[in-house]
Formats: sequence, C-alpha cells, structure tokens
Amino acid sequence: MTDPSTGRAGALARDAADPLAEFGDRFARAERDGHDLIYLDGNSLGRLPLATAERITRVIRDEWGSGLIGSWDHWIGLPAQAGDLLGEHLLGAAPGQLAVCDSTTVNLYKLACAALDARPGRTVIVTDDDNFPTDRYVLQGIAAQRGCELRMIHTGMDAGLDEVTVAAAVGDDTAVVSLSHVAYRSAALADMAAITDLVHESGALMLWDLCHSAGSVPVQLDACGADLAVGCTYKYLNAGPGAPAFLYVRRELQDQLRQPIWGWLGQRDLFEMGPDYDPVPGIERFTTGTPQVAGIVAVQEGARLLAEAGIDRLRDKGIALTEYLLTLADPWLMPLGCSLASPRDPARRGSHVTLHHPRARQICQALAARRVIIDYRSPSRLRFGLAPITTRFTDVWDAVDETRQIMEDMGLPG
Amino acid sequence: MTDPSTGRAGALARDAADPLAEFGDRFARAERDGHDLIYLDGNSLGRLPLATAERITRVIRDEWGSGLIGSWDHWIGLPAQAGDLLGEHLLGAAPGQLAVCDSTTVNLYKLACAALDARPGRTVIVTDDDNFPTDRYVLQGIAAQRGCELRMIHTGMDAGLDEVTVAAAVGDDTAVVSLSHVAYRSAALADMAAITDLVHESGALMLWDLCHSAGSVPVQLDACGADLAVGCTYKYLNAGPGAPAFLYVRRELQDQLRQPIWGWLGQRDLFEMGPDYDPVPGIERFTTGTPQVAGIVAVQEGARLLAEAGIDRLRDKGIALTEYLLTLADPWLMPLGCSLASPRDPARRGSHVTLHHPRARQICQALAARRVIIDYRSPSRLRFGLAPITTRFTDVWDAVDETRQIMEDMGLPG
Repeated sequence: MTDPSTGRAGALARDAADPLAEFGDRFARAERDGHDLIYLDGNSLGRLPLATAERITRVIRDEWGSGLIGSWDHWIGLPAQAGDLLGEHLLGAAPGQLAVCDSTTVNLYKLACAALDARPGRTVIVTDDDNFPTDRYVLQGIAAQRGCELRMIHTGMDAGLDEVTVAAAVGDDTAVVSLSHVAYRSAALADMAAITDLVHESGALMLWDLCHSAGSVPVQLDACGADLAVGCTYKYLNAGPGAPAFLYVRRELQDQLRQPIWGWLGQRDLFEMGPDYDPVPGIERFTTGTPQVAGIVAVQEGARLLAEAGIDRLRDKGIALTEYLLTLADPWLMPLGCSLASPRDPARRGSHVTLHHPRARQICQALAARRVIIDYRSPSRLRFGLAPITTRFTDVWDAVDETRQIMEDMGLPG
Repeated sequence: MTDPSTGRAGALARDAADPLAEFGDRFARAERDGHDLIYLDGNSLGRLPLATAERITRVIRDEWGSGLIGSWDHWIGLPAQAGDLLGEHLLGAAPGQLAVCDSTTVNLYKLACAALDARPGRTVIVTDDDNFPTDRYVLQGIAAQRGCELRMIHTGMDAGLDEVTVAAAVGDDTAVVSLSHVAYRSAALADMAAITDLVHESGALMLWDLCHSAGSVPVQLDACGADLAVGCTYKYLNAGPGAPAFLYVRRELQDQLRQPIWGWLGQRDLFEMGPDYDPVPGIERFTTGTPQVAGIVAVQEGARLLAEAGIDRLRDKGIALTEYLLTLADPWLMPLGCSLASPRDPARRGSHVTLHHPRARQICQALAARRVIIDYRSPSRLRFGLAPITTRFTDVWDAVDETRQIMEDMGLPG
C-alpha cells in the first residue's frame, strides 16, 4: 500500500511504471470546453478507441456508401466473428459459442426463456435483489408471463453473493439461475466456478450477466462450465453507446435450446425464405434480426485493443487502481463520513469501487462541475469506475483529492 | 407512357425534368473498382446520405469521444424524437406514438405478444403466406409458445392481399392480424384503411409491417386507425446496415398493452432502479435496452432528407419510375420469357417491380457482373428496387437495357 503522504508524485511514479500506460494514447481525448475530464465512468460508457472511430468511418463510407448491398457478403459473418474474438481473448470460450447481437436486455430475455423451456416441470427462476434492474425486470416479466416464481436472493447490497446463500435458494424446482458476475453497484465479484457447480448440482441452468466483468476481469466460461451468458459491450469493451451486446450458449446446449424470437437471421437457409422456421445449427440460432454492422465492428476494435493489452495485465492493473483508490480514500474520505460499499478484498471485487455517503448525490454533482466524472448510484453511493486500459493513477489521485476538497467545502462531516 | 423508341434520350429528358434530381448529389457515390454502380437495390439497403456520414462522425468523435457519459442527457430522448420525425413526415402519426429501437424482428415479437395478451380468449394470429420470412417465423414462434393457431392467408404470391380474402380469414377467434403494407417480393400494396377497418370489425388488433413502404409510399397510420406497426430503416429510409427499426402503438392502446421484454429503458424512474418493473406511460414502455445511438441519428438524417423531398413527390416519382420500367420491360423483356410478378396497377404497387423468369438467378448474377445491382428473390424472380430519392430514369433504362442484352446473350427465349 502506497503512503498517501508521498502525494501526487506517488501517482505519477505509478503511471510511469504502468506497462499499460501507452494504451491511453490509443483513445480519444475526454474533454469538456477544451479541458480534460477525469473520467472514472468507463464502467458505464467506455472511452472511444481511435481505431474504432477510423474503422466506423471506413465501414460507413466505403463498405456501406460504396459497396452497398455487396458488403453483406462479409457483414453477415460479423456476429459470430466478433463473438469468437471475445471468447478467445476475454471470456474463455472456444469458437462457435458467442454471438454479438441485440441488446443485453433482449439477449437475457431470449436465453432465460430458452432455459425455462429446457427444464419443463421446473417453475422457479432465481436471481438476486442486487442484480442490475434490467435483469430483475426481464426475469419478472418472464415469470409473470409463464406463471413462474421469481425467487430473490437477498444479498445485503454491498457484500455480494456467497455460495451458501445461492445454494439455499436453488433446488429441484429451479429451472434457471441468473446472476451478475460483477455486481453493478458494489463491484462484488461472484465465484463463477463454484456457483455454476452448485447450480448444476440442482439440475438448473446457469445464466451469467457479464456486463461489469467483460474486459476487466478474466472470465472462463468454458472452464467454469457456464451454460449461458450475456453482457454489454459499451462499458469496459469500449464499443460505444448502444453497441450490440453478446450472448454465450455452451456448445452442447445449442441444439437443445430454442429461443423465443424466431427471426430470419437464425434461419438455416436465410434467402430460401421457406415456409417454416428451421434454425441453423450453432450459435446463430440465438440471433434474431439484421445485425447492427457499425456497432459490431466497434466491438471487434475494442476487443482487439484489450486483447493486445492482455486480460491478465488488465486485471492486475484494475486491482492496483482500486487498491490505490482505497489507500487514498481510507485516510481522506472515510473520516468525512464515507464508508466502503464494495468488498474490501480485491480478489472479490471487480474494477470499480463504491463508497456510501448520505450526500452522495450532491458530491457527485459537485465533482462533475469540476470535470471529475463518476457515477451516482441509488441509494447514496459514489461509484468510481477504474477502466484498466484508460485510467491513470493520477486520475485516481485527482478524483479522490477533489472529492475530499468538495466534502470539506460542504462542511462534512456535518 | 414514353415510347421506348425515344431511346436513352427519353430517360435523360425525364431526369432533367425530375424535381427530385438534385437529391442524387446528397448521397455517396455507389461504385465498385472506380466505376459507378447502377444500384436498384435501395429497397434492400438504401444508399448513404452524405449528411449521415458526417453526423455519425460527429456523434462518434464529439458526443461519444469527448462528451462521453454526459451525452446520455440528450441521447436518451433519441428513440422518441426519431419516432416523432418519422410520424410527422412519413408515417402520418401524431407525436408520442413511434419509437426507434431494436430490430424489426424484435419489435414485431414485442407487439404481437402484447396484442395477444390484450385479447384474452382469442387464440388465432392471422398473417399471409407471402409475408416476409421474419414476420412468419416470429409469429410461428409465438403461436408455438402460446399454443395459438397461426392462420395463413393464401395470397397467390404476386397478386397481394385483397380485402375479401383477409375478411374471410378473420373472425371473433382472432386476436391479431399481422400483414405487410407493401409485399417484399411482389410490391403489392395493401389497402391499409380498408383492411384495418375490417380487422377492427372482428374485434382483433391490426399490426402492420411497413418495411417496404416507409419512405416510399405515403402511410397514414393515425387516419387509418392502425393499432400497431413496425418497420425497418435501412431500406428507403437510408439509415444503414442494421440501423434500429421503429415501432408504432396507437396512443389509446399504450396503457392497455404490455410488451413481454421488460427492459430498464421502459422503466418509469430509470435511475431509481427500484425493485419492480413499472413501465413509463407513453411509447417508451415499448422500448427495451440501451438505444443504439449512431443508428438512431442515421434514421433522423435519412428521415430529414425524405421530408425535404416530400413523401408525395417521392410517391409520384416512385410511380413514374416503376411505370417507366414496365414501359421498357413490356417490349424488351416479356418477349424473352419474363412475366410481371407485381401488380400492373401502380396504385396497388409500391416502389419496386418484380419480374418472373425461370433463369432469374443467372440473369441477376450476370447483371451484377456488369455492375447492375438488383435482387434475386426466390422463386425465380428479378426484383428491381426503385428508391425515389436516388434512382434516376437513366438507371432504369440502363438496367433494363443490360437485362435485355444479357438475356439475348443467354439465347433466350431458349
């Protein structure tokens, strides 16, 4: 642990020693009114890789503008190609099990319905009350539609999931368990292997949401025996606002599962346009409509950049950044009334850190006015997202220092 | 009707007199290997407006690259804003009834499920066997899931839908009728007002697919009393490959209908992230996940360009183009074995013309080799898409002339 008394020079020294420092130059400058932002929100919307801006321009002007319909010859393969890229470098999945398509919400819906159909007679869906809203709402909707029970694990919000609590909620009535690998609010990191195992022991299928882990935490979908997964690409994968999400279906399950939205992109002979839906073998049967081309190439560019950095080095830096933040927050912010709303153990934490304070919303607004961008998260939480590929140790220093000044100016502790 | 004997000069004269001719310069050049394409496939993938390329670049570099998360303050309103723009200028819908989101496939799924739920006790979904594959497959999937009947109207493929046939298929067992306004293969144009009326008489809801009419044929959703509609934006709306689709829900129905994918974008207090799904009043309740920003701004740019041209002038030109094509095809192609696979009456036809020929696939490939891009559509059909805002009369002349030469070179009629 660095002594905060070494001051900003300590942060500068860490940046100078950071093997990933050079990647900062591969991203567009984050600025407002000509001044740099301190951007600690890459876990909400990741920064723009310069290569992505160039690639999208080429796709728009050359492939669409000039090439027009002929470009579909290669565009059509993009969802699976981008999926394979994610699988190889970031998600621990052999080819043919991931596709980039639709939104996280829609993918979650498709896979949860498919899982439920694959476990007839089992009428319980399990999730937790700290799961991201769209996950809870989507599962609620499915449960209402199907007359199933949505069973909520109570997490205690900041502590995250432990295997004992999950095991207690899962039984032989359970069709599917849907959990986030890294919790969106607390950053609590679930033990994917252990939880998947215990879910399998009950005979249920396991559906992971990787929105807050993909690109920041190593994921081993195949090795953990995960059945299903979804995740977005606009956070640590830096694919841009509303870029398409991904879905994973373990190879052995692909023929057994049928998703509910029978779109023509999942059809075996796409242009035969025959009378009956006959889904293609393989992961494409889980796609639906026309692929969002510009968004998928952005996923490819983002994934390539992270692959070049290496997910293990990214994880190492993510831990170093979050630990450094706590090294500063412990002496500076906790005495002003903040408390840690993330796991203390870095092995149980993703790449963001959340602090509780009753006046979190005002602090967050005051930080934004000083061009320090973090997230307010209800209830009363400051969320500092430390994207390993773009965040500098000086960003962390400056953000915590500004937070301290703002809190002191507010007369805290009051 | 022009006498084809006036030759290409007749086509040039028509281009010179075309009040929309100037719009051609507002689009990127369609070319391959430095040579212009004759692109009659704008009904499959519309051409790139230059303004769209510039807007997307700004959105990527400035709004995402620099502005980052702060840009969500205005991005969040895009789905409804783009929907209103379509409604005002192209689809005849008052504000608050259209959103740009998801794909046509996903939107069709959401609205068909919502319609079915809104008509409890009615177990029949009606569509037609000439409807676009994704429409038929999606409805098939819903019927299989819900244990409903999917009742197929038999159209005879090229003639399109008439009210008598539709009326015969619809009864007091019918929950929802889902039809295309312009048929993807034949271009047959359905009478939206008359069919909507007769569907309403049975107590069912009417769901229109506008993929092949939006931007080429005036649509009056409100005036026709349409309940629901979906459509894509990458054809006549020129929003690019995989740009998001639109959906329409008539205002009076919005509170009664509940779509099945309960995503957080439809939630009343988005960032409260409360325990239960509580959909916002209004059209946003039919959206699901994070909006695809770059795709939606492309819809706005495409819609603005068409609005500037004016949908009535676009329709006039669409009719003039398809009539001109038939003026040439009648003496040149029909004697070589082609037959018309579209309605002869322009009032019953959208903006493409389809010809049947047993060797259509080879003819289509030979045209592509000569840089004339049309669509092959199964079975044995040549589809000439005449996008009113970009297609010139000389394009039509050249395409039919090349087709004639190719067919003669093939020794047709054989």
